[in-house]
Amino acid sequence: MADLNWKTGITNIKPGSIRVRGYDITDVMANLSYAETVYLILKGELPSKAEAELMNAILVASIDHGATPPSVLGTRTVMSGGNSLNAAIAGGVLVIGDTHGGAIEQSARIMQEWAGKEGSAESLALELVGWLKANKKRMPGFGHRLHKVDPRTAKLFEIAQQHGYNGRHIELCLAIEKMLEQQLGRALPINVDGAIAAVISDMGFDWRLGKGFFIISRVPGLVAHAYEEMTREKPMRKLGPLSFEYDGPDDRKISE
Amino acid sequence: MADLNWKTGITNIKPGSIRVRGYDITDVMANLSYAETVYLILKGELPSKAEAELMNAILVASIDHGATPPSVLGTRTVMSGGNSLNAAIAGGVLVIGDTHGGAIEQSARIMQEWAGKEGSAESLALELVGWLKANKKRMPGFGHRLHKVDPRTAKLFEIAQQHGYNGRHIELCLAIEKMLEQQLGRALPINVDGAIAAVISDMGFDWRLGKGFFIISRVPGLVAHAYEEMTREKPMRKLGPLSFEYDGPDDRKISE
Amino acid sequence: MADLNWKTGITNIKPGSIRVRGYDITDVMANLSYAETVYLILKGELPSKAEAELMNAILVASIDHGATPPSVLGTRTVMSGGNSLNAAIAGGVLVIGDTHGGAIEQSARIMQEWAGKEGSAESLALELVGWLKANKKRMPGFGHRLHKVDPRTAKLFEIAQQHGYNGRHIELCLAIEKMLEQQLGRALPINVDGAIAAVISDMGFDWRLGKGFFIISRVPGLVAHAYEEMTREKPMRKLGPLSFEYDGPDDRKISE
Amino acid sequence: MADLNWKTGITNIKPGSIRVRGYDITDVMANLSYAETVYLILKGELPSKAEAELMNAILVASIDHGATPPSVLGTRTVMSGGNSLNAAIAGGVLVIGDTHGGAIEQSARIMQEWAGKEGSAESLALELVGWLKANKKRMPGFGHRLHKVDPRTAKLFEIAQQHGYNGRHIELCLAIEKMLEQQLGRALPINVDGAIAAVISDMGFDWRLGKGFFIISRVPGLVAHAYEEMTREKPMRKLGPLSFEYDGPDDRKISE
Repeated sequence: MADLNWKTGITNIKPGSIRVRGYDITDVMANLSYAETVYLILKGELPSKAEAELMNAILVASIDHGATPPSVLGTRTVMSGGNSLNAAIAGGVLVIGDTHGGAIEQSARIMQEWAGKEGSAESLALELVGWLKANKKRMPGFGHRLHKVDPRTAKLFEIAQQHGYNGRHIELCLAIEKMLEQQLGRALPINVDGAIAAVISDMGFDWRLGKGFFIISRVPGLVAHAYEEMTREKPMRKLGPLSFEYDGPDDRKISE
Repeated sequence: MADLNWKTGITNIKPGSIRVRGYDITDVMANLSYAETVYLILKGELPSKAEAELMNAILVASIDHGATPPSVLGTRTVMSGGNSLNAAIAGGVLVIGDTHGGAIEQSARIMQEWAGKEGSAESLALELVGWLKANKKRMPGFGHRLHKVDPRTAKLFEIAQQHGYNGRHIELCLAIEKMLEQQLGRALPINVDGAIAAVISDMGFDWRLGKGFFIISRVPGLVAHAYEEMTREKPMRKLGPLSFEYDGPDDRKISE
Repeated sequence: MADLNWKTGITNIKPGSIRVRGYDITDVMANLSYAETVYLILKGELPSKAEAELMNAILVASIDHGATPPSVLGTRTVMSGGNSLNAAIAGGVLVIGDTHGGAIEQSARIMQEWAGKEGSAESLALELVGWLKANKKRMPGFGHRLHKVDPRTAKLFEIAQQHGYNGRHIELCLAIEKMLEQQLGRALPINVDGAIAAVISDMGFDWRLGKGFFIISRVPGLVAHAYEEMTREKPMRKLGPLSFEYDGPDDRKISE
Repeated sequence: MADLNWKTGITNIKPGSIRVRGYDITDVMANLSYAETVYLILKGELPSKAEAELMNAILVASIDHGATPPSVLGTRTVMSGGNSLNAAIAGGVLVIGDTHGGAIEQSARIMQEWAGKEGSAESLALELVGWLKANKKRMPGFGHRLHKVDPRTAKLFEIAQQHGYNGRHIELCLAIEKMLEQQLGRALPINVDGAIAAVISDMGFDWRLGKGFFIISRVPGLVAHAYEEMTREKPMRKLGPLSFEYDGPDDRKISE
């Protein structure tokens, strides 16, 4: 049977009235920042002052990372093929999968699964790092291919600290960083994804929303790249491999 | 030839340093709102106080419009088919085309093409409405299928007025509204898309970025719907037509 | 480091020459059917006569299933929003996930994991059905919400039988069907996805290609629906829920 | 109002019965090739013998063009980001826009607009080339960046000739080729897109379906590339630019 009378708890629409999670849209337009509104629509409730600042910093932190991330390549390739702006953004969002932009989700999942257990953050971190080793897994959200120390991480934790915002997940996250260095003999510092994972977990967001924060944050960056491609580059420029080597079957004929 | 050494003017990445349009990301995280950062990354410069508030209101205004818009159907259909969050968001963004979410772009295009001409806003509006009539075109960004008066429009212009922010495009937009009512004999009020079109045009944004503001604003709403579908509904529920009538060729056989 | 000199074993391109898996494209155009070419490009080798007929039947079988599948809703929703044909097809392909079109992959995976074990098809089927029961899993590729007996299944197995094409996976598939009926006390017949899963497994295709056959087969159907939407329907018609009920928070105000 | 009782003329579904354009699916599975079925579902009628062979050759011709086309980059980038097969195919289809894969549509459009006029193919070609010159337009479907002579074109026209299949559009297409060489002083031979455009126009297909044939043909190639990426390459390898040069604003600070 068709499911044609949905229930939704997000936004209530009537002629002349739009209410997001109960709040009139004009009230929200006048009194909330966009970051607070993002928090509201995803959480269902207003953020505290600390949460508002943290959510703002989270959304700013991942807005762009230059021309090299694969999602930028996705957006520019679609745009360069002669397509519309929305198709180009969709093409970039499609790239944001488990190996690009997936670390927030994966890191938050592990933190949320472990933070509920009994024991100090230190003892949990010890146990967790042992479990990772035993299962030959890497801890997502730690280390970065480019930034030895991710400047965004420090800023995010600084804001949290200013507000005394340090829940169980942030605590666990910092303990994991220490434990990893101790066990590995070299630093594997928290990156921005790990920091965001800890903060949204303390905010009470489900880890399955992890990619959502990255997508929301990155979409304006993708729009900027799509527009730069549209206005500064020729259509269908060569964005991919310089050349490629064919290593398949030799020349042959269909024998009839 | 492959184009493998791109130029980009958006973000400068070096080890330990991320600079968006010249500003250090930690400086931006601490001192700009997310709405201001969106303005910065798309415009290349910081907004004024008025522009910051207006950009915030623009992004809040379109964040969600309940379960009925086709982009929500796109997102929920992809999610319901058993796909990832990013695929579901891409599916919703793909729907945002010329007839859904396209009015900002179309309205801004016309305003930008006409606002540069000589003459008062009133005389331009008169000429423009005549041109629309002669070409049997509707003015995009005016009228709404649900809201007779769009509450978001009034709030947006109120914020503009508070700051004395009323450039040539806002002036023209208001003149068009008056002229349409005068010529048609009934009100066809500015809707939120028309209001946004006027404001971003006064901010100096290219009309080709029009859909971008709608997409940026709506993505958090789509994330909320994707999450609601994921957590409250059964997979592959029937979202589409109740039934359909086949009116193609009658039963027949391939004669060999 | 950038990976800019790819290796590929699919197609070798030189000026004036295109060779797919070693065969000149003009040779293929003249001597292979499109279904055989699909087999060739995915497998790397030419199909036997039996495999050619089966691949043809597989691609025909899933070409369309009327207006109700969610992928059709995806395609029509994107088209109806005012987008290009390729965006509409991409929108439909995006919907084809684990719960819509995923049964071939899931069914082939289980068959491939079990067919390699020792024992008769009957004993394996007995063990497998027991395992499904113990783990409260359903066997993908069996049963259909609409067709009690799927006419496509019978035809596919009939073609296989005509050619004496009955490898280990087809054997196992038929044994599972018997065992399910025996254990459940009612028929849960193989559907077209289960039959395709068995046949492509006997052809030696990796189960991870399962969705690929469904996508290839269904894309022409999606093109037909996109074109019908484009030429027979008004833009942005209401394709989604008839109405929806808001069950979120009551009206409230932001207290400042 | 919701449009919940659609009409469709494509496929009629009843329990135990699937009829495509009136033909029982099992009849089609047994008696039509997949290429003939593609023709049937898009045209609504069965192809002649000549049309069946031509449609087969058209679908084979564009199945793959090695690793360099942007749609392959789109598909591989999505796959490399850690996404599902269907998302990767959607990512590739999204790239197929006006400047990549758009030539069939554009070429067929012009041919269909001109073939209806009175006069010999030669006189129309003369007039058309003059019109292109006067409007500084290039004729889509002629010339190729890699293949001086496209081997697929010759084969397609050879098949057409064998069957005496040479309607008004093929005639016009060949006349344009001659006229372009005469007027430009150098050969600008018909490429595979131009040849396909002429043939599908003689088959009576609307030019707006042009991209559809390219998409249908290319999807198996994209599946092959997605699978090769999945099985032969590391996740998130660097597919894009070797490096990039930042040419935006210099380092600066937000003054508060």
